[in-house]
Amino acid sequence: MIKPRTPPGVMELLPRDQIAFQRMLDTIRGTFERFGFLPVETPVFELSEVLLTKTGGETERQVYFVQSTGALGKAAESGGAEGVPEMALRFDLTVPLARYVAEHEHDLAFPFRRYQMQRVYRGERAQRGRFREFYQCDIDVIGKDTLSPRFDAEIPAVIHAVFEALGIGAFTIQLNHRKLLRGYFEGLGIEGDRQAAVLREIDKLDKRGEDAVRATLEGEGFGIAADVVERLMAFSRVRSTGHDDALARLDALGAGTALFEEGRDELRALLGTLQAMGVPEARYAINLSIARGLDYYTGMVYETVLDANPGIGSICSGGRYEDLAGHYTKSKLPGVGISIGLTRLFWQLREAGLVTTAESSVDALVTLFDDAGLEHALALSQRLRAAGLNVETQLEPRKLAKQMQYADRAGIRFVVIRGDNEAERGVVAVKDLRRGEQFEVVEAELAQTLLVEREQWKVQGGQ
Amino acid sequence: MIKPRTPPGVMELLPRDQIAFQRMLDTIRGTFERFGFLPVETPVFELSEVLLTKTGGETERQVYFVQSTGALGKAAESGGAEGVPEMALRFDLTVPLARYVAEHEHDLAFPFRRYQMQRVYRGERAQRGRFREFYQCDIDVIGKDTLSPRFDAEIPAVIHAVFEALGIGAFTIQLNHRKLLRGYFEGLGIEGDRQAAVLREIDKLDKRGEDAVRATLEGEGFGIAADVVERLMAFSRVRSTGHDDALARLDALGAGTALFEEGRDELRALLGTLQAMGVPEARYAINLSIARGLDYYTGMVYETVLDANPGIGSICSGGRYEDLAGHYTKSKLPGVGISIGLTRLFWQLREAGLVTTAESSVDALVTLFDDAGLEHALALSQRLRAAGLNVETQLEPRKLAKQMQYADRAGIRFVVIRGDNEAERGVVAVKDLRRGEQFEVVEAELAQTLLVEREQWKVQGGQ
Repeated sequence: MIKPRTPPGVMELLPRDQIAFQRMLDTIRGTFERFGFLPVETPVFELSEVLLTKTGGETERQVYFVQSTGALGKAAESGGAEGVPEMALRFDLTVPLARYVAEHEHDLAFPFRRYQMQRVYRGERAQRGRFREFYQCDIDVIGKDTLSPRFDAEIPAVIHAVFEALGIGAFTIQLNHRKLLRGYFEGLGIEGDRQAAVLREIDKLDKRGEDAVRATLEGEGFGIAADVVERLMAFSRVRSTGHDDALARLDALGAGTALFEEGRDELRALLGTLQAMGVPEARYAINLSIARGLDYYTGMVYETVLDANPGIGSICSGGRYEDLAGHYTKSKLPGVGISIGLTRLFWQLREAGLVTTAESSVDALVTLFDDAGLEHALALSQRLRAAGLNVETQLEPRKLAKQMQYADRAGIRFVVIRGDNEAERGVVAVKDLRRGEQFEVVEAELAQTLLVEREQWKVQGGQ
Repeated sequence: MIKPRTPPGVMELLPRDQIAFQRMLDTIRGTFERFGFLPVETPVFELSEVLLTKTGGETERQVYFVQSTGALGKAAESGGAEGVPEMALRFDLTVPLARYVAEHEHDLAFPFRRYQMQRVYRGERAQRGRFREFYQCDIDVIGKDTLSPRFDAEIPAVIHAVFEALGIGAFTIQLNHRKLLRGYFEGLGIEGDRQAAVLREIDKLDKRGEDAVRATLEGEGFGIAADVVERLMAFSRVRSTGHDDALARLDALGAGTALFEEGRDELRALLGTLQAMGVPEARYAINLSIARGLDYYTGMVYETVLDANPGIGSICSGGRYEDLAGHYTKSKLPGVGISIGLTRLFWQLREAGLVTTAESSVDALVTLFDDAGLEHALALSQRLRAAGLNVETQLEPRKLAKQMQYADRAGIRFVVIRGDNEAERGVVAVKDLRRGEQFEVVEAELAQTLLVEREQWKVQGGQ
């Protein structure tokens, strides 16, 4: 006898949690499609030589390799030049996107808006809340040669629509611009490689605190004058509250280098776009401390936080990059995109009590008391299904109390009862387990009644 | 520069094909949920010791093993007793289901109806139409200790609903029963292990033809008398056309052993259930040559064929089995289930010209002629989205002909045009690329107009 268990570091859900998770996936997908993004799915494994061009450091050490039975034990021969196995599991959706766009370049229309929602794999150290397999939900817009900053401006409107639809509480999309940052550094005489090094420190403000970062920047390695460090700190402290305040704070930064002005103009245009698209001003803010990693991003950067749960960290991040697929094609493919790590988010929301067990995807249980009633129960179930309801038929007679108890445990809202008494009168009794009420309805009107009830609940914001 | 390419044996789709594929997935999922099946997803990898209990022969040789970077080169130490790596990719959805049900036994309500639609992995020999990564769409009902044959009877109604909804042509669900088969063998004096051996030969009738199979059964290895073989052949030739014919053919088989009668009774009850559930009689038939593999199935077995494309083979198969998870739990868990290999089916349908390139998931392109129109285009797009339409906004001004050409290539149905002339009159022009018509509509009524058009098309059976 083998103990049935999953490998460590995966999230496997019981059906009712899976229903809640699936609803989040559906909501995200529907919103991505609302904004004209097209679906892409890629294989779970890529050729190692393709996948590992872009990695380095930690990510490469976390890659999972894949070998067929035949290749086992002769890893050195089966693989590429470095003797690694031929294939590996994707560790994000960006490298597969780069490979996809380069491979299918001549069949795609640019700017290419794609969404992709699949699982990715990383050999993380086993730890609570760390996952080795997790969903990423990504959108990107890829241009050929150029991509207007207007696409960057549309992205936060998508983020807004997604989290509004998910209904997991108030949130703020935090905005910054790498050109504004780097331009500001230039103005302070911090140039070239030092910019990246300083950015790296600024990025640690949240974790290390201002004093520690200040000490590092003033210390031997950097040797930046105290007054310059103070200006860096003041800059990174800038946060806006509301649309006009964001514009005012951008103005208040004073004149800067050409790069700085370019970043500021793009940020202003982005704020205008959000307003034109009707995104409420409480949902976005400027936060000049946001840097988002090091070299990849070149323009707008985004992070999104839950107002009541900032400790969860950014729940949706991304930004603009200059060249998606330089390893695979000579074409220049600038892009902008965001990613939601849904497995981790779902786990965190559940830990914080922000997602509760969902009602079942089954709308109604059609009960059965004796074998004579089976044919009618089957036919009635089919009529409800034809109307668009999800229905489970009780196929073996049981006591009503048992069937009721089952529906309650399973989260099924409606229990449909047709005893002799009801049958004689052409009605059915319906127990609504959510409202704790029971009512009778003419059998021919049952489907319509349940549909209306279900829709009303949705309108009222029920799940 | 690395050549961007996928590993061999995977199906990667361009966006419009992905949209068509996604619609099939959605249709199947929706239908599974209609019948009360609950979603389950399992990790792509399982512990090798868990995954490999059930395999043997070909399947085991096709398993893909997974190793983290750290475990590379020390496969012998990292694995289980046999020195295989710790984890492997699932090769079907049945073993993960067995592990899932055994692991979560105390948290599940039985009979447990689950659906699972995920990719599985097999190191098949590279060959046209063979896939190393492919979707399976499975449903199973798992009982605890017992499971009424009524669940077997409901399954073909689900198959019917799925393929009716997919709209890929007329199909027939072919039915047989292992007890009927084995009972008939008993009656002919074929007992024990010889039953399995004879079944194996009967299973080859399609491929080898009747003469070859007859020769084998009469030959040295089996040594079955010619008249007995003739009765086996006659039995396996039985096919019904229509409901009453199916019942009549069952009757015509004459009296048999207790096992035979048990099988026949269950088949009769199943036919009654299909009738009660309103499944058209043209969609199901008895086919007594169907055996479906060897030892796994113990009761009803199903295969489904496209009437106009029988060469594609069975597009949905399954049956009843006695014990799902004997390797993981002492509980007896009988079940019944079916599987659709969607990747292969999609590929075959495309090869046969039965799926065509889908229209885009984007309903409308809102055009743009000059920068001054951007704000209005953004706001209009948002209003259409709020109404439930999928909308792409043209963010950079281009000539109308170019925008029209883009929408046409992308399969976007509606192009929304608002030039100065239209703006002055408070209307927009809409080019309907599907109908090749252009019309004007008051801007405030645009969303409603497009929604109605979209719904009407769906009602007319459009994709």
